[in-house]
Amino acid sequence: MIAQSFFAPVQRELQEVEALLHCQANDAHPDLCAALDHLLSSGGKRIRPTLGLLCGRMLGAPHDKIIILAAAVELLHTATLVHDDLIDGALLRRGIPTLNAQWSPPATVLTGDFLFARAAKLAAETDHLALMKLFADTLATIVNGELTQLFQARGLVSRENYYQRIYAKTASLMEMTARAAAMISPVDEAIVETMRQFGYELGMAFQMVDDILDFTGEQAEVGKPVGSDLLQGLITLPTLYYIETHPDDPDLNILLEGEYSAEPQHMERLVQSVRASQAIDQALSEARQSIERALACLANMPAGAEHQALQALANYIVDRHF
Amino acid sequence: MIAQSFFAPVQRELQEVEALLHCQANDAHPDLCAALDHLLSSGGKRIRPTLGLLCGRMLGAPHDKIIILAAAVELLHTATLVHDDLIDGALLRRGIPTLNAQWSPPATVLTGDFLFARAAKLAAETDHLALMKLFADTLATIVNGELTQLFQARGLVSRENYYQRIYAKTASLMEMTARAAAMISPVDEAIVETMRQFGYELGMAFQMVDDILDFTGEQAEVGKPVGSDLLQGLITLPTLYYIETHPDDPDLNILLEGEYSAEPQHMERLVQSVRASQAIDQALSEARQSIERALACLANMPAGAEHQALQALANYIVDRHF
Repeated sequence: MIAQSFFAPVQRELQEVEALLHCQANDAHPDLCAALDHLLSSGGKRIRPTLGLLCGRMLGAPHDKIIILAAAVELLHTATLVHDDLIDGALLRRGIPTLNAQWSPPATVLTGDFLFARAAKLAAETDHLALMKLFADTLATIVNGELTQLFQARGLVSRENYYQRIYAKTASLMEMTARAAAMISPVDEAIVETMRQFGYELGMAFQMVDDILDFTGEQAEVGKPVGSDLLQGLITLPTLYYIETHPDDPDLNILLEGEYSAEPQHMERLVQSVRASQAIDQALSEARQSIERALACLANMPAGAEHQALQALANYIVDRHF
Repeated sequence: MIAQSFFAPVQRELQEVEALLHCQANDAHPDLCAALDHLLSSGGKRIRPTLGLLCGRMLGAPHDKIIILAAAVELLHTATLVHDDLIDGALLRRGIPTLNAQWSPPATVLTGDFLFARAAKLAAETDHLALMKLFADTLATIVNGELTQLFQARGLVSRENYYQRIYAKTASLMEMTARAAAMISPVDEAIVETMRQFGYELGMAFQMVDDILDFTGEQAEVGKPVGSDLLQGLITLPTLYYIETHPDDPDLNILLEGEYSAEPQHMERLVQSVRASQAIDQALSEARQSIERALACLANMPAGAEHQALQALANYIVDRHF
């Protein structure tokens, strides 16, 4: 990975966050310690802590609190990934074996629980009650989103459902991160709300782009077959655009009737149709609009290296891999 | 179950707790709502919320906060049971089907996570930062205890290990409950510490008695085969006493060499030997000593119906089923 410029203003802070993350299981069972080290070394880019650190520094938050907040956010994210991988039966994440590929399901469930507990403890250490409640609410939103997706029939064509899903899955945590960074800063409510919106738009764009990359990425890069969501009957933004412009494609019927798993060759052809259509560009254009709104939120924020880095981060989210 | 007198002073508060518990999934997916109702209707005695309510009322805690605390404690307990039953593959709890007997493992994992999130949210609503940290720490203690037990070889003969295990499993949450009730009350640090100790002793005795009932209870009552811990190679207090007084029992070798699952007939004979020995009375006597220490903690606490009910609760813990 090429080092991105937006990490630069918080290079040292990121090292402090890393140290704080790695010591979270120091007083626990040695195998749990080892599991945490494995999880933290699994190549996450630390986009979320970087977002929190940049927002906090831009707005003048106390140093100690932004470090703790950034660590809490990354740990919460890590905990949800541990349970996600278990639920999906995923054996690799970013090319590295998942915890459940090496551990029993019981140990994996409990490791996720332990990380939730430590994330909550870190959040409490910011000494900010409203932040604690926001943190707990965000976890509930994420988990409720996953449960809803689990219970929902596949082949559901609904923009509203799509936006709710990506909010729960990705945007809620980035929204919380930017908002919480403002909450621990000496700024007024209007700034907190603007930063919340900044994080929201960033997060929505982030997941839209992930969903586009699922179609356009190379299998080796994404680590999953091209169009893996659609192959599993999950309709994301590119497919929504495709359906709007090609309502008569006969392969769509297979999808909408929930027969996607029985007719994989139809679904593979549909993936190729979406890839070859305007739907990819349309989806990308929608993600870019989110990023434009995010950049507008930054307009009146304090100038400086952190402000510039947040702009770079926003642009990176929509430009990566294109 | 015969209604116990110690519920009387907090009858109305328990109804408020119940209402607060049942509305925790109101804004979530309907299936999650139904799952929560099922879990809450599964016949728990509400010992933990009762403990919190009695302590809080005795010490003059604000009404709203003790209700919230009691609900948070019960929800945290419920969340850990959901993941426990999944891990153990238990299909019944208190004679009622567990969540994992009816739901897929993914849905069960996520339901537990959702309950953790809501418990944390409730804890935050007490508006007490130290309580939040204590809450998160207690969850970490419980989960670390489960992980340690998972990783540990069976047939381990160690009192220290036993006490650590029952602290993590049961006493930590009761300790937290009594301590937190004091923290939200207008009392000084010394009282908080005494109430912490009260909850600790109560919790240690509670689990010791549970471990004794595993030997002495009828299968129908306990819902598991008599001596189920020992049949699985898990050494609890009665077995520890038995080993000290019968070091030469040849059936013990099977256990200590970890061959318990290969030689079930030896383990069944060992269960009968423990049942017939003095070990049961010795273990019970140790639990009674814990309860004596708990009662001593109450000595200088405000008199009244709650004080008496806490004494009754302490006595009930060690006298149930004997």
